[in-house]
Amino acid sequence: MFPKEEYIKRREQLRKLMTNGLIVFLGNEESSINFKDNWYQFRQDSTFSYFFGLNEPDLKATIDLDTNEDIVFGDNLSIDDIVFTGPVESIEEQVQKVGVSNVKPAAAISAYVQDAIAKGKQVHFIAAYRPEHLLELSNILNIQPSEVKGKESLELIKSIVKLRSIKSELEIEDIEKAVNTTVEMHYKAMEMAEEGLKESDLYGAVKEIALANGNNTSFPTIMTINGQILHNHYRGNTLKKGDMVLCDCGAENYSNYAGDLTRTFPVDTKFTKEQKEIYDIVYDSYSTAADLLKPGQLFLDVHLAACKKIVEGLQGLGIMKGDADKAVKAGAHTMFFQCGLGHMMGLDVHDMENLGEQYVGYTEEMKKSTEFGFKSLRLGRALEEGMVLTVEPGIYFIPELMALRKKENKYFEFINYDKLETYKNFGGIRIEDDFLITKNGSRKLGNRLPSTSDEIEAFRNNKTRL
Amino acid sequence: MFPKEEYIKRREQLRKLMTNGLIVFLGNEESSINFKDNWYQFRQDSTFSYFFGLNEPDLKATIDLDTNEDIVFGDNLSIDDIVFTGPVESIEEQVQKVGVSNVKPAAAISAYVQDAIAKGKQVHFIAAYRPEHLLELSNILNIQPSEVKGKESLELIKSIVKLRSIKSELEIEDIEKAVNTTVEMHYKAMEMAEEGLKESDLYGAVKEIALANGNNTSFPTIMTINGQILHNHYRGNTLKKGDMVLCDCGAENYSNYAGDLTRTFPVDTKFTKEQKEIYDIVYDSYSTAADLLKPGQLFLDVHLAACKKIVEGLQGLGIMKGDADKAVKAGAHTMFFQCGLGHMMGLDVHDMENLGEQYVGYTEEMKKSTEFGFKSLRLGRALEEGMVLTVEPGIYFIPELMALRKKENKYFEFINYDKLETYKNFGGIRIEDDFLITKNGSRKLGNRLPSTSDEIEAFRNNKTRL
Repeated sequence: MFPKEEYIKRREQLRKLMTNGLIVFLGNEESSINFKDNWYQFRQDSTFSYFFGLNEPDLKATIDLDTNEDIVFGDNLSIDDIVFTGPVESIEEQVQKVGVSNVKPAAAISAYVQDAIAKGKQVHFIAAYRPEHLLELSNILNIQPSEVKGKESLELIKSIVKLRSIKSELEIEDIEKAVNTTVEMHYKAMEMAEEGLKESDLYGAVKEIALANGNNTSFPTIMTINGQILHNHYRGNTLKKGDMVLCDCGAENYSNYAGDLTRTFPVDTKFTKEQKEIYDIVYDSYSTAADLLKPGQLFLDVHLAACKKIVEGLQGLGIMKGDADKAVKAGAHTMFFQCGLGHMMGLDVHDMENLGEQYVGYTEEMKKSTEFGFKSLRLGRALEEGMVLTVEPGIYFIPELMALRKKENKYFEFINYDKLETYKNFGGIRIEDDFLITKNGSRKLGNRLPSTSDEIEAFRNNKTRL
Repeated sequence: MFPKEEYIKRREQLRKLMTNGLIVFLGNEESSINFKDNWYQFRQDSTFSYFFGLNEPDLKATIDLDTNEDIVFGDNLSIDDIVFTGPVESIEEQVQKVGVSNVKPAAAISAYVQDAIAKGKQVHFIAAYRPEHLLELSNILNIQPSEVKGKESLELIKSIVKLRSIKSELEIEDIEKAVNTTVEMHYKAMEMAEEGLKESDLYGAVKEIALANGNNTSFPTIMTINGQILHNHYRGNTLKKGDMVLCDCGAENYSNYAGDLTRTFPVDTKFTKEQKEIYDIVYDSYSTAADLLKPGQLFLDVHLAACKKIVEGLQGLGIMKGDADKAVKAGAHTMFFQCGLGHMMGLDVHDMENLGEQYVGYTEEMKKSTEFGFKSLRLGRALEEGMVLTVEPGIYFIPELMALRKKENKYFEFINYDKLETYKNFGGIRIEDDFLITKNGSRKLGNRLPSTSDEIEAFRNNKTRL
């Protein structure tokens, strides 16, 4: 938790961006696994956390834009609770730490909001991403769950995006902590990987580091010898010589800020010739993109430049052909790079994704594409100083996609399908780092981690950190 | 997953226990953490898993008791999905493995069930423990979410409890695997614990073992130097000489069966004199309870016998006084042992808790108590061969509870408050093992783990396994 001044300032800034009405913030509840009281690890809602900082379940809050009154709704524990949870600070003590002085019982929010509605106040809230939010909004607004959708406040969403997109010094410091824990996770995976171990051994080991040094992982770790499967969560394979391990993982620290890094490395101490060739293309794409980062730069253009580098690299290997710009325009690169180059990162690993990717990553003039490949690009708009984002190009050989596109007669102008066929069992490679947009360019966050194929091989060989 | 005959048999047994109508089973959906597509690790609903075995999200199923038709409702993946998840067996292939031949699209279930209702069929379903179940039931039954509650089928609940309470050979084998992973988790914690480490270091290390050897932990690990807080999930304390570590954790294997064990051990190689005295009382209570386990035995009476041993032990130390039976009757032991002696364990660590503790652990003649202490006893009814349950007595010195009871003038006949005061900072001790009820008694599940204070000290000293 930051000093209370940070939260007071954030709410003050939000008030300035908004006109009038009542804003309702729903904190998260516990999330049940297989019966009501067996819970996944509690995670506060990021927007609630951003404006109110409190990290306990079952809290709600309001900001009245007309009276400037902030209220936190929540209940104190009974002795029955304390037996199970231990003594906890009272709600009254907790809210003081975030600069709020008004507390009401949790159940009071419905009457409070309905009273405001009766008085003609507009009620602002963001979309529900958990079903309990939908039920809660239905209860608070006294309408059926099916009627809630479409009533979200665009004014609120845009204001939150405006604030949360630009990270404060305190936030950057916290994000860098999470990135550094993530660096440790990657060193661990690269240190311990060897023939005969299972993906699940590495998976468990990196989770351990996230848990020992912070709150949790910021998303489910991808630890796989099948890097071509973009969000692969199977972890039962045994590592063999010749395999590459793709590790995409992130730590979330106690204040809920995220890190998110990817490395791909050989189970041997060296890549094969083919692996190194593809790796170097991905690295070239990565460094081209990283060099372009600066305020004012459209991230869509960075994405396109990274795609072009991939096309050019694959042309060098005879897998692609024709005009590189035309290939990217036609989407032929999506045979190999099916997703976006990166996304903003902060309190969420895909920052603010629950607020809507159109509002977070695009503008009114620049709509998010619905085409395969481009539709997975979460960020397209011009970069601004203080943004934090990932750069994560990759090359993935997906047999099912190769077969489908060939059957569809697609991209024959740009792809040598015969040559491509020889890469059917190659797998996939991704390199990902986290960057802060600075006044004149960018700064890579976190401690050094091997990035080039030479650095990766050197580390796998001598286990000596950079 | 078990051979399909197991699932066919389970559904057949359910049909025999029920009369008529249509049973609706909801599999679980992905559960969002902080935005829609950032998911907690998927966990299938246990009842769905018991009857249909499939471990993918967004499945539903029906059993028609009148026509004997079983249907699984679910959708196959698109190429967009396959890019992210990799190739997955078709639904048609999956259901064959559990002996089902009818598949319909996920969206078809609403019309199917509403058609059955229109034809006058009774629809059976169990209570929702996740909010998405409530929304889904509302959708399927075409009623508002607020109208769903109270419409659960008691006939279905009781039939499921009857089946799931008695474990098959295959289930026992699977549970014992989970218990053995749990044994490894405890050995790890007892091996690595030392002054200066944090609770979170041990927490991460035991999670690693669960993840490397199975699906997950079966519940959030309790790893604390404040064992008196029954469900303590804070893990930021540093271990100091003189502290005890209470580790309550369990593995869940890939088939979702759970283990659940607790040990309490000193950060030093030896307990202090006071710690050993309390430990030995808890152990005495534990072994008394374990010795009583056999078919026909009321678990409520086992609980009472364990409570009495705690009272007698504390009398020996001068903390309690008076008649031990009367003390238990008056509930004076709940100053130290505030919870239940144990619970059934299987596909859920608190098995079937979502079906209702009254139905799972009690009978029509034997209602669950609402009194402090007794209300936390999840199992009271007579034991049966094939049940699996935990035995987990403990002694917890909770300063807030001590202060409250003294202020309320409670238990002065049975507690020496002056002597008790000297234990205010003692903490808490729990010992927990998992037992199978056999034909003539019980069998402790899993490999050996130090249990007595001497065994614990010997292991902390020489790290040699039993």
